[in-house]
Amino acid sequence: MKNERNLTLLTDLYELTMMNGYFLEGKQDEIAVFDVFFRQNELITYSVAAGLEQAVDYVLNLSFGEEEIAYLKSLGIFDEGFLRYLSGLKFTGDIYSVPEGTVVFPKEPILTVRAPVIQAQLVETAILNIINHQTLIASKAAKIRYAAKGDNVMEFGLRRAQGPDAGIYGARAAVIGGCNSTSNVLAGQMFGIPVSGTHAHSWVMNFPSEIEAFRAYARVYPKGTLLLVDTYDTLRSGVPNAIKVFDEMRAEGKKPLGIRIDSGDLAYLTKRARQMLDDAGYPDAIICASGDLDERLVQSLKLQGAKIDSWGIGTKLITSADMPALGGVYKLAAVEENGKTIPKIKVSDNSAKITNPGFKTFYRIYDKATGKAEADLVALRGEKIDFGAPLTLYHPVERWKKTTFENYEVRELPVTVVKDGERVYDFPSLKEIASYARRETDTFWDEYKRLDQPHIYKVDLSDGLYALKAEMLETIRKGGSL
Amino acid sequence: MKNERNLTLLTDLYELTMMNGYFLEGKQDEIAVFDVFFRQNELITYSVAAGLEQAVDYVLNLSFGEEEIAYLKSLGIFDEGFLRYLSGLKFTGDIYSVPEGTVVFPKEPILTVRAPVIQAQLVETAILNIINHQTLIASKAAKIRYAAKGDNVMEFGLRRAQGPDAGIYGARAAVIGGCNSTSNVLAGQMFGIPVSGTHAHSWVMNFPSEIEAFRAYARVYPKGTLLLVDTYDTLRSGVPNAIKVFDEMRAEGKKPLGIRIDSGDLAYLTKRARQMLDDAGYPDAIICASGDLDERLVQSLKLQGAKIDSWGIGTKLITSADMPALGGVYKLAAVEENGKTIPKIKVSDNSAKITNPGFKTFYRIYDKATGKAEADLVALRGEKIDFGAPLTLYHPVERWKKTTFENYEVRELPVTVVKDGERVYDFPSLKEIASYARRETDTFWDEYKRLDQPHIYKVDLSDGLYALKAEMLETIRKGGSL
Repeated sequence: MKNERNLTLLTDLYELTMMNGYFLEGKQDEIAVFDVFFRQNELITYSVAAGLEQAVDYVLNLSFGEEEIAYLKSLGIFDEGFLRYLSGLKFTGDIYSVPEGTVVFPKEPILTVRAPVIQAQLVETAILNIINHQTLIASKAAKIRYAAKGDNVMEFGLRRAQGPDAGIYGARAAVIGGCNSTSNVLAGQMFGIPVSGTHAHSWVMNFPSEIEAFRAYARVYPKGTLLLVDTYDTLRSGVPNAIKVFDEMRAEGKKPLGIRIDSGDLAYLTKRARQMLDDAGYPDAIICASGDLDERLVQSLKLQGAKIDSWGIGTKLITSADMPALGGVYKLAAVEENGKTIPKIKVSDNSAKITNPGFKTFYRIYDKATGKAEADLVALRGEKIDFGAPLTLYHPVERWKKTTFENYEVRELPVTVVKDGERVYDFPSLKEIASYARRETDTFWDEYKRLDQPHIYKVDLSDGLYALKAEMLETIRKGGSL
Repeated sequence: MKNERNLTLLTDLYELTMMNGYFLEGKQDEIAVFDVFFRQNELITYSVAAGLEQAVDYVLNLSFGEEEIAYLKSLGIFDEGFLRYLSGLKFTGDIYSVPEGTVVFPKEPILTVRAPVIQAQLVETAILNIINHQTLIASKAAKIRYAAKGDNVMEFGLRRAQGPDAGIYGARAAVIGGCNSTSNVLAGQMFGIPVSGTHAHSWVMNFPSEIEAFRAYARVYPKGTLLLVDTYDTLRSGVPNAIKVFDEMRAEGKKPLGIRIDSGDLAYLTKRARQMLDDAGYPDAIICASGDLDERLVQSLKLQGAKIDSWGIGTKLITSADMPALGGVYKLAAVEENGKTIPKIKVSDNSAKITNPGFKTFYRIYDKATGKAEADLVALRGEKIDFGAPLTLYHPVERWKKTTFENYEVRELPVTVVKDGERVYDFPSLKEIASYARRETDTFWDEYKRLDQPHIYKVDLSDGLYALKAEMLETIRKGGSL
């Protein structure tokens, strides 16, 4: 498929004005370290990282062609030398990131860019755009998967997505987070996602009667006869007509697949429809439900005993309707001078917005006995951490307890993805990512994942990072400069 | 710029399964008429239509290439003859639509496709995706423009947009609805939108001190020195340092542009900063504000007397955060048999979801004296409407009143955009669209546009459409088939 776009200019103007400034101030080769992280938010207590592959594609394919340079020149604010410099610009830095599908928490440096400041600044906007979007949708899908408790979940939102990419990469992210398939054919083609879908109300309305429409569908798809039964009247017309056609199929030795209901009271209708199908001898016929569903409605329908085997989730997943932006940020954590790392901190009168300084990584600590994640630790890169020393860990049921590390496994989550401008990491297939995400999500107690009042997972700072941050804040308090 | 994608498969699988079914049932040449419309929603009392150019581009560039056909074949559900048929498929139908920038209301057929059913079905998903997204963002921008009362409004949301397209086409839509510029350089290049942006906190943190960062910025941009003053402490450090640099510039005969504040209490900070700038002799220095703003915060800040000249609106505009999907639908309105139009209706036990049948258009009625829009009338195409007859019109202040049409002008809003697969409409430039949208929006009384408890604009059905709908519903009530 043709899918070529030069997205180099997918950036905020201020990145380019700053780059021009760094160039003119002779700072273009200074190394800077930027972290991507999310802030605490009541609606996102845990997230599933996604979008790394597309973000890295953007960074490694940066290219200012003639048209881009001509456009920038036309703005009349850039130095000629800077524009010449841009025309040869490639990314030569490093990127560290958690693998896609990793469960991540607020304030963790899920992606770190270490590069000449002029490059690190350029890539900020696109990295945030891509990671914010895909992580948002993957996280929403994870919540829906949690509520659906193992049922089949289909992503149906393309028509309500915020433009083509939101549909395409939203479907990719939904599969990472927990969906089994998508209705989006282009996403199916691009990423090998299973595609699903049967027919719409318009199919039924395009035939002289509902039963003729159903018969035609059964003729065309004898192996996948799934009939939408709510065009006219679900229980008085749709389900009885579907059963009539199923009977005709059975008489010919064919096995129908089931029905879909897209409107009305899904609890009531699916229970009644299940009974009607069972009574007619179709206990294996599945019932798919769709129509403005999200994780809360799925949970409510299951609590009400709705008879739904397969869930089609549209608008509220593909837009993450209750929180349509994740608010990930990209903050300067350090600069390097003569090979020495100088940590940087951004303070704020809102203490939740104070950043963690320094070139960092983070660790996840697992209980060997249960295999469950117990806490994360954000630390400075190169910091020696005594994982054998007694540490305070959080357990959602037993609450605070002192323990040593001998019963725990420690894993460093970020990996090196790009080194000196070269990719040094093989991107897994989407199937592998989705499977990793499910395993990762399952290492967290349900207490962290429940929809109401979840426990807040503990993310701690290492001794070295804590001391550095305290020292820098103290210097600022005393009126000093950093 | 390279910007080539084959988006043909940007469709839901069920469109293709239905198409395959219509093909096998010999129905591929039957003509169907589908309407795009929005349903009533408390958060969108009026919308600004956008996305037509991209939707039509999709339709007229449909092309199933070898890779697309091979992928569809691999799914194992499509007829070989159908796949051959697809490989030569072009859109041969008609599209009617309101011009972009038109103010539209729920239930109005803002875009109508009349085409062989197999084509009309294919294009449903992408048309909805594109029109839903851009109309959503244009409508949100119109609300922000209303609240900003003529101030400069800048679209700043790219990093929080739902993927690259959401940023790119969202910026386009935001300009249609009411923004004056965007931070998105690619959108600037693609659509000729003015771009805006200066520097981030990281610029300040990348210099030894705030004042050195400000001095460097003033050196690089002596004609556009706009300084971000909230990196450390807005009133104690940022504004005083900015004034110091402005004084240095003044000594050299240069004129500074102003400051930007991106956090904290914008009402308090901007009033204090304004006073400090005025006292220092910079009454012309502008104050830009940004940081999680939307139309309600803009309105609130203006009510509080905040001193803000220019508004940067990010996340909440580019995602339409309080309502991230418009919910536009594409519903079968008619089919044609032997050249005769057979109207179709979709009923529901929710009466708000019953569709308007038939091949339709709609009219807007303007008061000649005031130039204001008074009501819209949805009618059947070809229906003779006696615009001289007394009609009941709604006036937001005078309430219901009887009047005749002699004091009114009537305009049919949809135009013919595509006829027999050929474009017969020249797309205006984005500048023309934005200017048209502003004129259109200004033809509505503020009573319809206010943020709280707006009057609901009257959209009526013509006598012919009303009679047809009543007759069809009566037939269904009596148990008849349509």
